[in-house]
Amino acid sequence: MNYVKASELKDFLGQEVELKGWVANFRSSGKIWFIELRDGFGFVQVVIDAGKVDKESLAICEKLTLESSMVVAGLVAKHPKLEQYELHATKLGLVNQAVDYPIGKKEHGPDFLLDNRHLWLRSSRQWAIQRVRNTIINATYEYLNKAGFIKMDAPILTPTSCEGTTELFQIDYFGEPAYLTQSGQLYLEAGIAAWARVFDFGPVFRAEKSKTRRHLTEFWMMDAESAWVDHEGNMKIQAELITYIVQKVLTDNLPELKILERDLTILERVKPPFYRLTHAEVVQKLRERGSDIGELDDLGGDDETLLTELYDKPIFVEKYPASVKAFYMKRDPADETRALNSDLLAPEGYGEIIGGSQREDDYHTLLQRMKEQNMPIEPFQWYLDLRKYGSVPHSGFGYGLERIVAWICGLKHIRESIPFPRLINRLRP
Amino acid sequence: MNYVKASELKDFLGQEVELKGWVANFRSSGKIWFIELRDGFGFVQVVIDAGKVDKESLAICEKLTLESSMVVAGLVAKHPKLEQYELHATKLGLVNQAVDYPIGKKEHGPDFLLDNRHLWLRSSRQWAIQRVRNTIINATYEYLNKAGFIKMDAPILTPTSCEGTTELFQIDYFGEPAYLTQSGQLYLEAGIAAWARVFDFGPVFRAEKSKTRRHLTEFWMMDAESAWVDHEGNMKIQAELITYIVQKVLTDNLPELKILERDLTILERVKPPFYRLTHAEVVQKLRERGSDIGELDDLGGDDETLLTELYDKPIFVEKYPASVKAFYMKRDPADETRALNSDLLAPEGYGEIIGGSQREDDYHTLLQRMKEQNMPIEPFQWYLDLRKYGSVPHSGFGYGLERIVAWICGLKHIRESIPFPRLINRLRP
Repeated sequence: MNYVKASELKDFLGQEVELKGWVANFRSSGKIWFIELRDGFGFVQVVIDAGKVDKESLAICEKLTLESSMVVAGLVAKHPKLEQYELHATKLGLVNQAVDYPIGKKEHGPDFLLDNRHLWLRSSRQWAIQRVRNTIINATYEYLNKAGFIKMDAPILTPTSCEGTTELFQIDYFGEPAYLTQSGQLYLEAGIAAWARVFDFGPVFRAEKSKTRRHLTEFWMMDAESAWVDHEGNMKIQAELITYIVQKVLTDNLPELKILERDLTILERVKPPFYRLTHAEVVQKLRERGSDIGELDDLGGDDETLLTELYDKPIFVEKYPASVKAFYMKRDPADETRALNSDLLAPEGYGEIIGGSQREDDYHTLLQRMKEQNMPIEPFQWYLDLRKYGSVPHSGFGYGLERIVAWICGLKHIRESIPFPRLINRLRP
Repeated sequence: MNYVKASELKDFLGQEVELKGWVANFRSSGKIWFIELRDGFGFVQVVIDAGKVDKESLAICEKLTLESSMVVAGLVAKHPKLEQYELHATKLGLVNQAVDYPIGKKEHGPDFLLDNRHLWLRSSRQWAIQRVRNTIINATYEYLNKAGFIKMDAPILTPTSCEGTTELFQIDYFGEPAYLTQSGQLYLEAGIAAWARVFDFGPVFRAEKSKTRRHLTEFWMMDAESAWVDHEGNMKIQAELITYIVQKVLTDNLPELKILERDLTILERVKPPFYRLTHAEVVQKLRERGSDIGELDDLGGDDETLLTELYDKPIFVEKYPASVKAFYMKRDPADETRALNSDLLAPEGYGEIIGGSQREDDYHTLLQRMKEQNMPIEPFQWYLDLRKYGSVPHSGFGYGLERIVAWICGLKHIRESIPFPRLINRLRP
């Protein structure tokens, strides 16, 4: 008999097939049982009519439990009105009987659910979120490949930090200190002279001591770096990438977005041009709404929430005060106190999903910036080398995968966006 | 003017275009200069005839240096005999003059090259290796997506180790010890009850104290796990994946394989069925060739070299003594002293590229194995839960990306297979 996936049922209408999966839910009505079977690829209603199955199958029905694994043979039928397919069982086979599955219908607190994350992942919302995450990952590879980028894995274990020396996890590397990376950017900049366009996509780490709904200590970041691309071109790539991702999710994940009760009209609106404001304009807008943000302040999480609640599409905020941004950002030639950078903020209060900038490509200017910030020069000599041997104008950006997942899925807390979240008080399971 | 990539030149025959890149090599012959320009996407010969360019362009030719960056306008011409396209320059623009580029024509030792890895990546061999690596990564995603797997990122920071407690890097996680992962497998096993087929692909870490040509302390591993797949089915997926990868490299990377002087006939032979031997058969073969391997010994690196030099295609070695393999492997019902596992060895002396097995899916048997090995039970209770709530037959495997890159590219040492290798004595740059 054909072993098929839930997502393939429609190709087997009227035929007898076999599904393998887990009991996500069940109910009975007299001598009829209804099982919602999750097979990994989707959810299927299995209808068991006592008069149409053998005694062994009936015995299985009578002791049904949540999350038992089973093999079900049956005929594929279509819902009379909806585009839904179900299985009219001819035979049931129990693989493993689950007893007292701990996650039930009642409300559980977040700590209980996170303690049972290995099981919680099976619930329909969590199932849907990770399917969307998978689409976002694949859409990222697809877009970047088409745009000429190759993947260049930056190292995780590094002798120095990229963004400064705070919030680093340290390890003992055979007797010398090493740090878990916060970003692969500096290494990618070495790659552009070889391959012109490179990206990496891997875990990064921040020893965040604060608990917020936007922060994880371990998360996945995609950094992309391009030779011969300026600040304008950099924003163009970002807008195209985000548009590609959102459109791909809308194409591939409608059932998942339905489970998540996501408002599709908001996602459908995600197409260029995105909104574009300077940092100075944003400060003015925020002050009009009661914020006490200073003219040379970075945007905090609350500022981003306040701002992005006003918008229905992603917003580029560009040209931040250079003083609040990293040493490697090129300055705006029209105003040397400003960086040629942009943050891309997701609407609906979500806030920053991408940070990017044109990079300083002049050796002496970069060295000067590092000295101004009292950075040690020797550990970054290799990075300075890149401005000595065939330096070119270049730009790049990094996206936080979990923030994009949280926004596209409409999650309130970032912890559901990654299979096994790591937070200040959470290292298990 | 059209800014084009080296790889697109053939589409612009006879037209004037612009290339942007780096001087990988140059020579002159009287009043003609030849520049080998690397633009990231390939290498192009640029011909500059003193009579056909302006004074500024000529001045640039007269002070050419290795790795200077430049913009070149010119007419696309075809080599009279070969399928090669070159640029007959009409104008040169210097972007950044490189002075005394440290990597030259002469032989450099490995330490010098690794100290200058940020520049060494530009050399044609290194350029080619990372392009092949990129194809291998993409082919892996493509194959797994088609086969119904979704990406499920396992955590890097873990409270316990998967393969045992040796060779772990430890960090201080807000006051409690945490370890850098050695494999995401156990976490993936939680994923199969939600998505049936899952994989992860990320960095893993081994605090290897030995220096060998096969080991890195940080490398990339792809783990895949499938519900309802047995030992046989597991090997079938592996053979299909490796075949898909090698064929994709042969399709996309012929110029790179030529630079690497790789014997294509060996790669072209990589198609199922692969060779298949039991561990017992391998021991006999090795002993006939003078090895002193014991009947219940694992294969060492030297054994794998000796064995795989005999073969021209990948070799599955299956059913190792259970005593030398991990606690989670299911035993062979025909011989309980053997594991239902396989290692896939690459030919030509390369050795192990994949390890996999069917997993023990019975709660009591698994618990018993853990007790036999004196493992702590509490930290693995979540893993045992997976056998309690809807356990199903399942199998999985993990591949080492750098070993596959080294084999396909024909590298002598694994350190060239990753952009910034980490070895016992190497954490920089």
